[in-house]
Amino acid sequence: MSDLELKALVFDVFGTVVDWRTSIANEASDQLKNKGFDLNWLAFAEAWRAKYQPSMEGVRSGKRGYVRLDVLHLENLMEVLEEFKVSGLSSAELEYLNKAWHRLEPWPDSVSGLQRLKKKFIIGTMSNGNVALMVNMAKHSGLPWDVILGAEPAQAYKPDPKTYLTGVDWLGLQPDQVLMCAAHNSDLVAARNQGLKTAFIGRPTEYGKDQSVDIEAEHEFDFITTDMNDLADQLGC
Amino acid sequence: MSDLELKALVFDVFGTVVDWRTSIANEASDQLKNKGFDLNWLAFAEAWRAKYQPSMEGVRSGKRGYVRLDVLHLENLMEVLEEFKVSGLSSAELEYLNKAWHRLEPWPDSVSGLQRLKKKFIIGTMSNGNVALMVNMAKHSGLPWDVILGAEPAQAYKPDPKTYLTGVDWLGLQPDQVLMCAAHNSDLVAARNQGLKTAFIGRPTEYGKDQSVDIEAEHEFDFITTDMNDLADQLGC
Repeated sequence: MSDLELKALVFDVFGTVVDWRTSIANEASDQLKNKGFDLNWLAFAEAWRAKYQPSMEGVRSGKRGYVRLDVLHLENLMEVLEEFKVSGLSSAELEYLNKAWHRLEPWPDSVSGLQRLKKKFIIGTMSNGNVALMVNMAKHSGLPWDVILGAEPAQAYKPDPKTYLTGVDWLGLQPDQVLMCAAHNSDLVAARNQGLKTAFIGRPTEYGKDQSVDIEAEHEFDFITTDMNDLADQLGC
Repeated sequence: MSDLELKALVFDVFGTVVDWRTSIANEASDQLKNKGFDLNWLAFAEAWRAKYQPSMEGVRSGKRGYVRLDVLHLENLMEVLEEFKVSGLSSAELEYLNKAWHRLEPWPDSVSGLQRLKKKFIIGTMSNGNVALMVNMAKHSGLPWDVILGAEPAQAYKPDPKTYLTGVDWLGLQPDQVLMCAAHNSDLVAARNQGLKTAFIGRPTEYGKDQSVDIEAEHEFDFITTDMNDLADQLGC
């Protein structure tokens, strides 16, 4: 495709822009080790994350109204702490640990790549994370977003079409003027179904070296890239 | 007040951050002069802007559902063109002229002041302008916002309390952790009534040298400043 008609790039964030797995493992270790807990910290991070998709199903199905991801993360944290037999945390400690998701570290190429892309395009988030989470993470990690879009503005979780289309509408653009960038095939397919352009950003170690899903692009996307700087190269930034 | 508990600064934009009056006059002149129209361009800008507050009343009163400011600006433009006896513009020309509001120029201190403030605080918009308008203006003028809040996220126009409180809620903060910054007394009073902290930013020539309103702070606000850099000084940035 020509990139001439593109105006905005919107990004999945967890896994695509930031490395949630080692960030959460490090935060949990930092906060729980000195309280006497000795866990497999990567397993803890993976277990917490494994509850992420199922926890949004209640909102997607209409069983419950929209609640922001901070709320779902805390519900999931309570479960995973019980599974890992961690107890005795104060509510302030729980809240601080839950907000580890506001302090995720970027992949090494994310900040430099986004800075290049920002010079030519509007760059925004299209994440299921809530606005405060996205803004705090951006301040923590230097992510230079122009705009925070995604689940909270739409009051709907991806892959609900409303999430993508509210973002496009708020930008005053047509779907094909917006490039959805993600490391996950399903997210891109859902965006493509709404008319957005798509870019796969390979993150084959998001789940560690034995990752079995989303190793590569499994569909026809407009761009297939290895990281943010490769995307910037391909878009002539 | 101590500024220690402040986490975020949110800004009125039209008049406070950007000089809509000369920007609109220049854009109108650029676009209409070569079509043979010779108007008092500042009077044209003021007449267009004069329709701004009344045009939001329909939404505020509930007579019509929320429509974004681009829509109201276009309705108002059609009226003001008729009043100034300007006709014969194509729909593309009308749309381009209407989007002059997406290309407003900042006051000379705005970019440098915001850059200083951004290092210490979350900075966001709390404008009645829609998201695309704010994002495009930021790209045009180099305004380094962390987040776009205001009327479109809340689907309500200031001074509706919902506008301020939706922004505070999306930031995950309490109202007194957020500083509303504006050149207009009424905007600050409305924000203060919802528990936000307030900073007056003097813009005594927003309406030209004969300006008669909002020359100075008329109420007790937390900060009274002459421009963005004065605000940064007072906040220790």
